[in-house]
Amino acid sequence: MSEMSLNAAKAKDASRILATLSTDIKNSALDNISKALRNNADSIFEANKQDLAKAEVDGLSTPLLKRLKFDANKLDDVTDGIKSLISLEDPINKLKLHTTLDDGLELYRVTCPVGVIGVIFESRPDALVQIASLCLKSGNSVFLKGGSEAFNTNSVLAKTIYDAGIEAGLPEGWLYLITSRADVNEMLSLNEYIDLIIPRGSNSFVQYIMHNTTIAVLGHADGVCHTYVSDNADLDMALRVIVDAKTQYVTTCNTTETVLINRNVKDKFLPVLVNKFKDINVEMFGDEEIAKEYDIPVVEEWHHEYLDYKVSIKIVDSTMEAINHINKFGSGHTDAIITASKEEADLFTLSVDSGCCLVNCSTRFSDGFRFGFGAEVGVSTSKLHARGPVGLEGLISYKYKLIGDGAIVDDFASKKRTFKHIHHDI
Amino acid sequence: MSEMSLNAAKAKDASRILATLSTDIKNSALDNISKALRNNADSIFEANKQDLAKAEVDGLSTPLLKRLKFDANKLDDVTDGIKSLISLEDPINKLKLHTTLDDGLELYRVTCPVGVIGVIFESRPDALVQIASLCLKSGNSVFLKGGSEAFNTNSVLAKTIYDAGIEAGLPEGWLYLITSRADVNEMLSLNEYIDLIIPRGSNSFVQYIMHNTTIAVLGHADGVCHTYVSDNADLDMALRVIVDAKTQYVTTCNTTETVLINRNVKDKFLPVLVNKFKDINVEMFGDEEIAKEYDIPVVEEWHHEYLDYKVSIKIVDSTMEAINHINKFGSGHTDAIITASKEEADLFTLSVDSGCCLVNCSTRFSDGFRFGFGAEVGVSTSKLHARGPVGLEGLISYKYKLIGDGAIVDDFASKKRTFKHIHHDI
Repeated sequence: MSEMSLNAAKAKDASRILATLSTDIKNSALDNISKALRNNADSIFEANKQDLAKAEVDGLSTPLLKRLKFDANKLDDVTDGIKSLISLEDPINKLKLHTTLDDGLELYRVTCPVGVIGVIFESRPDALVQIASLCLKSGNSVFLKGGSEAFNTNSVLAKTIYDAGIEAGLPEGWLYLITSRADVNEMLSLNEYIDLIIPRGSNSFVQYIMHNTTIAVLGHADGVCHTYVSDNADLDMALRVIVDAKTQYVTTCNTTETVLINRNVKDKFLPVLVNKFKDINVEMFGDEEIAKEYDIPVVEEWHHEYLDYKVSIKIVDSTMEAINHINKFGSGHTDAIITASKEEADLFTLSVDSGCCLVNCSTRFSDGFRFGFGAEVGVSTSKLHARGPVGLEGLISYKYKLIGDGAIVDDFASKKRTFKHIHHDI
Repeated sequence: MSEMSLNAAKAKDASRILATLSTDIKNSALDNISKALRNNADSIFEANKQDLAKAEVDGLSTPLLKRLKFDANKLDDVTDGIKSLISLEDPINKLKLHTTLDDGLELYRVTCPVGVIGVIFESRPDALVQIASLCLKSGNSVFLKGGSEAFNTNSVLAKTIYDAGIEAGLPEGWLYLITSRADVNEMLSLNEYIDLIIPRGSNSFVQYIMHNTTIAVLGHADGVCHTYVSDNADLDMALRVIVDAKTQYVTTCNTTETVLINRNVKDKFLPVLVNKFKDINVEMFGDEEIAKEYDIPVVEEWHHEYLDYKVSIKIVDSTMEAINHINKFGSGHTDAIITASKEEADLFTLSVDSGCCLVNCSTRFSDGFRFGFGAEVGVSTSKLHARGPVGLEGLISYKYKLIGDGAIVDDFASKKRTFKHIHHDI
């Protein structure tokens, strides 16, 4: 057995113990972790300085350097995060269904942890603290793989968190830091031990993960989000919302990449939109009609995420054409309609096969914090387990408990007894 | 594009329309299907006679012939099933969460169909009718693959159901019958179109499916279920429950395959159990200690599903040893403890990592109908999406709808507005 398999087996064993821990123990472990991070602040900052120095030599861009930085402000952020997590209701062992099958035979569905979560995250070291504490609160063991540029910071953070957890009574093996990219490949094969993989990173990386493991993956490869302007739209609203959806933060997955416009409002709306995009330096690509009329390049691939000040624009003849275009070329992430018609909005939100179907608002709202989930584990474009922005519930499963008093099936098969099936309100 | 890819693409398109259908249309389609099955009874029975004749020539066993038979009784069963499905509440477009993010910005989580379901089922042709009607009620398109021995019956059933659905207004491509085993392999690669695969069949077949597709699979390969007799058990109860759990129907996945006995009650309980098993012709296999004492074979592999009048027996020194044995050698399906101690029962149900954790009752209860779900789509040993016996909810996903009045994220980023996040009771 490789070192990683051994650690994965230990994480699995630990997950069985984590599942049984009281809220008090989990919260006091979180508290101890928060204290340990403060007590070890100097060595964390020192390790981060090493990473930053190396990153500068390696020529990392300024935004990436900013993400890599872990200073007193970031420490405040993560310890604040832990504090709010402590005050959050324990999501485990919550009753979700209760049915009396017969006298003295009670069925309960209760929440439980998923088990061992493998998380692969980008350069921000603060993500390590967030993920570790979310997994702990939800009773899961965690395998972590951070960006190689944060190697020193992540190592000190992981050791500090792990040790503080053990000190507070968590089981050995509850957290494990993976350090090399080769280890990620081994992790993808550990379906015996790892129950769920959450990759956060570039499209191609997430796609690679999704296609190279039979372990369930919670995530999204890309976000080709659309905003459709119906001929029932308030066009001033449409302009305001599209500008926000396209430019409020261009590198995020919920940014609108394609604007669809109903032909009936083309003459009124398109010139205004084109001028606005010119004003704010958004480069436009159009369908053949628009490209010719406005002398802009033709869109080569409609399923394309720019993550930049660039946008695709298309004229559609009907709302159904817009819906079909979105279902064909979108990525099931977030799509919006601008319309004053309730019927049209209902048709759109029912027919568009995306995790988030929005009406008269910016696609940029599609986010766990904005949705009020408190935490965001990721955004899922899968339709199973968890969809859309995923909060703590993405780390939760359930099990059935059936409590009897010697009940046997033969009594029911032989019609001596019949099921009562009394469903109780929760 | 192959014929099957084309049909899968059609099924995907159909699923977008099915998702928008009213309860009335779905129910009248179900009603029309029920009538069509009755109107076509003669040709269905005729096709079934051909299948039965061929099966007899091929030397199928009597139980398999019985499963293959589709006569007036089976027709009554399936039309009764459709009737009760019509009366069932529509599971789609149900509100699950409602949060006011801000004035005029309302977030809803609502249920929606999964999309296209691929179902591979064993020889019973009545399963085809059940599955097709469950998928229709939940708004999903369905790809069906039945046993080759039921080829003629399935072909007539599928055509009757499909045509009756179309007549009642369902979209083209809503149901598709796959006929060859080779087609199953092609289906496993259609992850662009098929959202969920539900295999029902032999262990090795289900395992093959699970390891050869990146499409999500709802199912279980095997059911190595345990019953553990604690030293706090009522031993008369333990005997009665174990006999039921082992012998009430030996070929089912929820049959107990291994009995664990606490050493403190070994002398009192084991001789009684051994005599009982001898009486009712259950062949016993033991750990080395028991094998020697009772002159029975040693268990070679603890993760073993007999599906027969055979049982493994092991002495454990503690409840924790029993729990660890189950987590190591079980299949996460169903496991039971016999104990009068509430604390011990709680430890067991929290620590055993199985979909169903039972106390003082037979593992044979672990079943969607007995649990009162109305229908059973399958039993899942995965911890994601759906776990344990799965009813209609296994065919359901959800999406978010965010309804605004021109809201943009920049107003919140610039602190002009702040989120209210008012969570409403459902």
